[in-house]
Amino acid sequence: MQTLRVDLGERSYPIYIGADLLARADLLAPHIAGRQVAIVTNETVAPLYLGALETALAGYAVTSIVLPDGEAFKNWETLQAIFDGLLGARHDRRTTVVALGGGVIGDMAGFAAACYQRGVNFIQVPTTLLSQVDSSVGGKTGINHPLGKNMVGAFYQPQAVLIDIASLVTLPARELSAGLAEVIKYGLICDEPFLGWLEENMLALRALDQAVLTTAVERSCVAKARVVGADERESGVRATLNLGHTFGHAIETHQGYGVWLHGEAVAAGTVMALEMSMRMGWITVAERDRGIRLFQAAGLPVVPPKDMTPEHFLEHMAVDKKVLDGQLRLVLLRCLGEAVVTSEYPREILNATLSADYAALVDQLKH
Amino acid sequence: MQTLRVDLGERSYPIYIGADLLARADLLAPHIAGRQVAIVTNETVAPLYLGALETALAGYAVTSIVLPDGEAFKNWETLQAIFDGLLGARHDRRTTVVALGGGVIGDMAGFAAACYQRGVNFIQVPTTLLSQVDSSVGGKTGINHPLGKNMVGAFYQPQAVLIDIASLVTLPARELSAGLAEVIKYGLICDEPFLGWLEENMLALRALDQAVLTTAVERSCVAKARVVGADERESGVRATLNLGHTFGHAIETHQGYGVWLHGEAVAAGTVMALEMSMRMGWITVAERDRGIRLFQAAGLPVVPPKDMTPEHFLEHMAVDKKVLDGQLRLVLLRCLGEAVVTSEYPREILNATLSADYAALVDQLKH
Repeated sequence: MQTLRVDLGERSYPIYIGADLLARADLLAPHIAGRQVAIVTNETVAPLYLGALETALAGYAVTSIVLPDGEAFKNWETLQAIFDGLLGARHDRRTTVVALGGGVIGDMAGFAAACYQRGVNFIQVPTTLLSQVDSSVGGKTGINHPLGKNMVGAFYQPQAVLIDIASLVTLPARELSAGLAEVIKYGLICDEPFLGWLEENMLALRALDQAVLTTAVERSCVAKARVVGADERESGVRATLNLGHTFGHAIETHQGYGVWLHGEAVAAGTVMALEMSMRMGWITVAERDRGIRLFQAAGLPVVPPKDMTPEHFLEHMAVDKKVLDGQLRLVLLRCLGEAVVTSEYPREILNATLSADYAALVDQLKH
Repeated sequence: MQTLRVDLGERSYPIYIGADLLARADLLAPHIAGRQVAIVTNETVAPLYLGALETALAGYAVTSIVLPDGEAFKNWETLQAIFDGLLGARHDRRTTVVALGGGVIGDMAGFAAACYQRGVNFIQVPTTLLSQVDSSVGGKTGINHPLGKNMVGAFYQPQAVLIDIASLVTLPARELSAGLAEVIKYGLICDEPFLGWLEENMLALRALDQAVLTTAVERSCVAKARVVGADERESGVRATLNLGHTFGHAIETHQGYGVWLHGEAVAAGTVMALEMSMRMGWITVAERDRGIRLFQAAGLPVVPPKDMTPEHFLEHMAVDKKVLDGQLRLVLLRCLGEAVVTSEYPREILNATLSADYAALVDQLKH
């Protein structure tokens, strides 16, 4: 087992990474304040892992709250079901909320923990690759609004993150690929050598090699923890973690939440960010294509939905959280392995990026 | 104008107290980050003060969000209307939310500011006595849940609190009295000499004497700021501010939100806390009666609803936020001017307190 640490002063916390950690009562106990625990999970994860976690927590008064599965349920109604469960079982302010599931569960359970009685303890037990390498670390929680993704939420750090690599064996291949989008992202924004490692190990990752997965998760979490430790509330460097996300969120919003997986939208969105970085003269055509090929090797879409026009993108991006005083800030690559957040770009380069024929571009890669 | 300061390190902020401050652009401007401002108010306050505040903020892109009036609307649906207004007008994360109204508006606008894009700037402009002396200071925000009051919320400090004493001239007499319940509370929990001042000045307060009101608000805010500065997240001394609130919340929940005003429920609840403190042997019968007479002089109810049984109280108090691991903690008076939070009391004294005949007790005071 590896233990990393997110360094945030009083709000610092450990990330445990390894196989078969889910039933480890000794790892959970130090982070539980009172005698009550609420496990928040969903209908897909519950049959697989809820029993083991409940057994590990047998010494506590446990309430398990099982939600419907999917980004489409990341809304107030579902959040309300968590509050109903907590209040129905009379959980007090020393209760501990445990999120067992993917990013949607972690975001919602974390936001519920942030708001319940103005804040209770919270432990992340992410069971998808995406949530293990990204959303479970760093304290971003929240729900979607019909007019925008993650528009309502809180920065709320967990007491601990417990990453059980063994839980990835039950993950559908499509979701594993979606998680790899964020893994590749760390290489692109801050760890160029990691890109080479990923190129070498992509087949092993997709074949669920536990040792290789552990390395990928660990290296991703190290990057995430470092960025979050430097900028908890995203006033600076943390925004670089959103490479591809502004374009990607527009895709998700346009398609309706849950039609594309988050990681899929991020992959196609990052291809657009690579294209724009290339048009800015910051990376070469070959570097752009290297990124595209890596997403393809991970089994991810690299072309935005056919019916999306530049106007669709601009409309959805206008409510993005990275808009400041009307200026749309974008995360771009200054070079491979180094991201910048900037609103200093010629408007025509953004327009050209939104109008580019990605299908044709990707088609050329085959030759 | 008086300027107090709530001392919370990085989250410190000023409280401005005086007459005719509402239109003072110079006081607001330093606390507004971007170019967008959202004023959140209600149908009762808007016709009285929204125009003046909009004029003071003429240099900004202002969105005014007018909500229905009343505690019954302190719920998710109304909160959602704030998010709809913010997103509809494309407010970004540098926007500033200004709460213009009483405690319900402040709590909801503050919670909306805490959650919108995971947190934006927030200014309190309280227009009721209750919110001026209590809820606008200290960062407690939130909404009610059908199973309990203020069960969903956040600790979220404003950038500034702007208290315009002149806005009290339009306050209905019943609401002025409700605010006086919290003013009296400060005397009971931490400022015994203030009780004598209140006895002398109660008529002038109820006659809306601006100078006397300013002193009462200032003295209350000094007490509140001191307690909040010592214990922002209510792990200790801050809980003493809830004198009478555990009983009072039970009354509010039982009657249905908005039937009794919060201050009215606190007054009757504080009479119960005085009764229990007396039964504990900590204050005398004469001190208990002095407290009751002060609430009566302020025009407040001092007897709980006739139909409420001890069982009703126990049921509603069981979900109170002051319950820890099943133990109900109560705020009681160790002596007049000094409160304690304790779960160390004989159960029979609590039962006797809940069963006492308050109508008969108050009737005796007339003789």
